[in-house]
Amino acid sequence: MSQKHPLHVLCSEQEASALAAGIAALGQTITLCHPGEERAALAEAAFISRDITGRSTKFEIMPETEHFYTAVRAASNLQWMHVHSAGVDRDFYQEQQQRGVRVTASHGASDAVVAQTALTGVLALARKLPQLMRAQQRHAWEPLMGKDRTPRDLQGQRAVVVGWGGIGQRIAQLLQVLGLTVSVARHGSEPAGPGLHTVRYDGLRDILPETSWLILACPLTDTTRGLISAELLAMLPAHACLINVARGHVVDEPALIQALQNNQLAGAFLDVFYHEPLPAESPIWDLQNVIASPHSAGFSDGNPARVRQIFIDNLQRWIQGTL
Amino acid sequence: MSQKHPLHVLCSEQEASALAAGIAALGQTITLCHPGEERAALAEAAFISRDITGRSTKFEIMPETEHFYTAVRAASNLQWMHVHSAGVDRDFYQEQQQRGVRVTASHGASDAVVAQTALTGVLALARKLPQLMRAQQRHAWEPLMGKDRTPRDLQGQRAVVVGWGGIGQRIAQLLQVLGLTVSVARHGSEPAGPGLHTVRYDGLRDILPETSWLILACPLTDTTRGLISAELLAMLPAHACLINVARGHVVDEPALIQALQNNQLAGAFLDVFYHEPLPAESPIWDLQNVIASPHSAGFSDGNPARVRQIFIDNLQRWIQGTL
Repeated sequence: MSQKHPLHVLCSEQEASALAAGIAALGQTITLCHPGEERAALAEAAFISRDITGRSTKFEIMPETEHFYTAVRAASNLQWMHVHSAGVDRDFYQEQQQRGVRVTASHGASDAVVAQTALTGVLALARKLPQLMRAQQRHAWEPLMGKDRTPRDLQGQRAVVVGWGGIGQRIAQLLQVLGLTVSVARHGSEPAGPGLHTVRYDGLRDILPETSWLILACPLTDTTRGLISAELLAMLPAHACLINVARGHVVDEPALIQALQNNQLAGAFLDVFYHEPLPAESPIWDLQNVIASPHSAGFSDGNPARVRQIFIDNLQRWIQGTL
Repeated sequence: MSQKHPLHVLCSEQEASALAAGIAALGQTITLCHPGEERAALAEAAFISRDITGRSTKFEIMPETEHFYTAVRAASNLQWMHVHSAGVDRDFYQEQQQRGVRVTASHGASDAVVAQTALTGVLALARKLPQLMRAQQRHAWEPLMGKDRTPRDLQGQRAVVVGWGGIGQRIAQLLQVLGLTVSVARHGSEPAGPGLHTVRYDGLRDILPETSWLILACPLTDTTRGLISAELLAMLPAHACLINVARGHVVDEPALIQALQNNQLAGAFLDVFYHEPLPAESPIWDLQNVIASPHSAGFSDGNPARVRQIFIDNLQRWIQGTL
């Protein structure tokens, strides 16, 4: 865009001071404005930082988040909105796209963190932390010996990483360092890389019977919605575990619960669910072989600075008309 | 040794069948004997596999373990004993050494497993699993946001690995893959390797103030006993965590408990303790920022085969007089 007037960018008050240096370096006249200010209605761009979405989820919007959304909706000249997350599957973002607003995401900002969280899930289940931490609460010394208690060697086990974006690629690298054999399931059929057996999503059924770790790191799309069906879950061996750092709806959640209840699966690390917050009455909370994490796989103190830099870089490109 | 008569090797009944193929391949006349058999008194070698030590600890010997120990003591011609563990600091092993029995350990058999467990401890604390799992028990959706709850970027944090055997080396490699900066504290002063700042044990005090992860993977020796003193613990920053997969007596345990109770340390993953089993009345069990593990860091289903192979290799060398 060619700039005829001071550019108005809608952002949170908390984020404004942190943005100042990066904005100044662009050498443009940019006015940061906030919900409640009259000039907020002039905003042509908006930056949805994490402090805005706060404790809201895709399904339940808190008042402070709604307050910002209202200001975005009232900005009739809004052309572009940048979002802190990697996924933009929330209804509000789709609503804005439908009225012609360009929506960009913060791809890559938390990839390394999410991959570490997935690895945490694998290791915590492999080393039986749920059992150990319950024994700890009982002050019970219960060494990991005996049938169904001795951990299995990770080396040589097969993991399948579903989704081959930045997160999936990092997960595969980490697992290979630990000596696991990694297969990849992805949208296309191109080989993912050396030593990585690669199948399309519809080829999963062929490799699941040999899979010890099924790790979901794909976006939620028409193809991946419900991809891990009851039928596919039933193909996994009983010692297998599921890690989901993707989206709840990639798995048939009721079928997953049943498989875990019946010990048809050995365990799961779940960061995402059909509904978030996970309802208090969900049976998932009490499954002894499950670690339920409150959609926090990507949270880390370095994220805001990484997201901010992506926004500033995009802002420069947007001003130059190259975004 | 030159063999004039059938060699008698004392081992558990459970282990005998698993040993058969490896023994046969040696092409020697070897008689496996067990406690309770008369010929057990003829044993010149003994193999202490993990099924023998079972749930005994260094401090509390169970009757089935004592039964085997009695047979070892009664074997007046015993020259050599092989042990499943990497450490041979149990009183019984020292007693046997004092009567002239050569004692060999299974170095390396579980190094990869112990290193994975140490990494599990780092990641579980970094990703706040103790907090998440307590929230899970309350069915509480509590995202990792806010002061003292948001995880810190692991990348760029400094870890110090104490002890530079096979376990320490593997831990360092894994942490470097995750982007941590690794320093090494070891007995000697030789640099541990590229990118690894190395100090002698007595140089720890210089680097602890910059250390986020203090990871103990050293043997218990006169030098390392009490190495991590109250004074050294106090030098760590408040966000630091301790991982102990070495021996309980490497750390001043009362000082560690106090530091954790007072939030002078952020957390700990402890697999070893002053007394094992950890007494039911120990305050460690209830520390909210501690994962207490029952000396199981090296347990894995692949270990018996690895230990057995080390024993067979040693047995061959012993017969040839080259052990």
